[in-house]
Amino acid sequence: MLDSIPSLNRLIVELGKFPGIGRKTATRLAFHVMQQSEEQSQALVEAIQNLKQRVRFCSTCFHVTEQDPCVLCTSTSRDDSLLCVVEQPQDLMAIERGHSYRGRYHVLHGVLSPLDGVGPDDLKIAELVERVRQGNFNEVIVATNFSIEGEATALYLSRLLQPFGVRITRLAHGIPMGSDLEYVDDATVGRAIEGRRDL
Amino acid sequence: MLDSIPSLNRLIVELGKFPGIGRKTATRLAFHVMQQSEEQSQALVEAIQNLKQRVRFCSTCFHVTEQDPCVLCTSTSRDDSLLCVVEQPQDLMAIERGHSYRGRYHVLHGVLSPLDGVGPDDLKIAELVERVRQGNFNEVIVATNFSIEGEATALYLSRLLQPFGVRITRLAHGIPMGSDLEYVDDATVGRAIEGRRDL
Repeated sequence: MLDSIPSLNRLIVELGKFPGIGRKTATRLAFHVMQQSEEQSQALVEAIQNLKQRVRFCSTCFHVTEQDPCVLCTSTSRDDSLLCVVEQPQDLMAIERGHSYRGRYHVLHGVLSPLDGVGPDDLKIAELVERVRQGNFNEVIVATNFSIEGEATALYLSRLLQPFGVRITRLAHGIPMGSDLEYVDDATVGRAIEGRRDL
Repeated sequence: MLDSIPSLNRLIVELGKFPGIGRKTATRLAFHVMQQSEEQSQALVEAIQNLKQRVRFCSTCFHVTEQDPCVLCTSTSRDDSLLCVVEQPQDLMAIERGHSYRGRYHVLHGVLSPLDGVGPDDLKIAELVERVRQGNFNEVIVATNFSIEGEATALYLSRLLQPFGVRITRLAHGIPMGSDLEYVDDATVGRAIEGRRDL
């Protein structure tokens, strides 16, 4: 049926390349584009082009930014003795939403994953080591995910950064805010007990 | 956090306008666009522009098409005595996927919905009446959805088309293919009993 409407089919194929978007959703989105006004679809096209033109990576922390260095690196109200290492810009933004961290950041743009052919040279690891060597950091929080690759990367980084005498930490495991003990998985409860704190 | 990256924020807002795409999904999609290569995002932009330029509605049946009249209207292998009326192009495509219908189509582009201010003049109803008046249709299948608005529209159309002496039908209700009787809802089982057929 779609063979007779190649331009619709082409957009469905393009939208289907997005993560988590299957063919059905892509079809729904493509129909929405088709039924949009000319101005609306033009706004979408311009937003895509504008993003690709303006956004780059900060040359210091490698977060996404429109100005280099980014506002997080140039801010004078942030703590220069603290560095938080994350996998992706999205992780940085998640930590910012927590409103608990006021230090600097470093985005690796991935994790070590030998099976996928991702080694240290594919990540911003040399740049991280250089920053720690030159900076006055007391503590590096390695906030990679708690996946196998994330844990392995954290271990790798901790060995790499040990010579500089900085404290190297990981995020706390524990009960998520607002959740019922009854429904939290066993491993998390175990870790929460181990990491218990004085009241 | 996103305030410092307005171009990213702008694309998230645009993507968030799509049906079924919330802010979280829009953010994920926008990051994907950002991390795509220049060629990949250009392919997406061109697919959108290409669709908007090429696709129009068939002046006969109002299905989406790149040539007017569309392949469904010009096909010589379809039955000119049968007309199927649907709400949207997506519904037409669903019926085509069933491979059971070989007549012509008419797309209303909506249903009567007084609460939303949609009256007969907002739909392709006058064009439908004109086609039935001029054509040699024996039967009009009103395949609007079984929603309140869809049923009301079907009733409205059946009264409107009665003077032309065509048979007016609705799609059958019944047990969906491949489903277990045990798990089918009561109303559907009831309708399936009422509509039982000789073996």
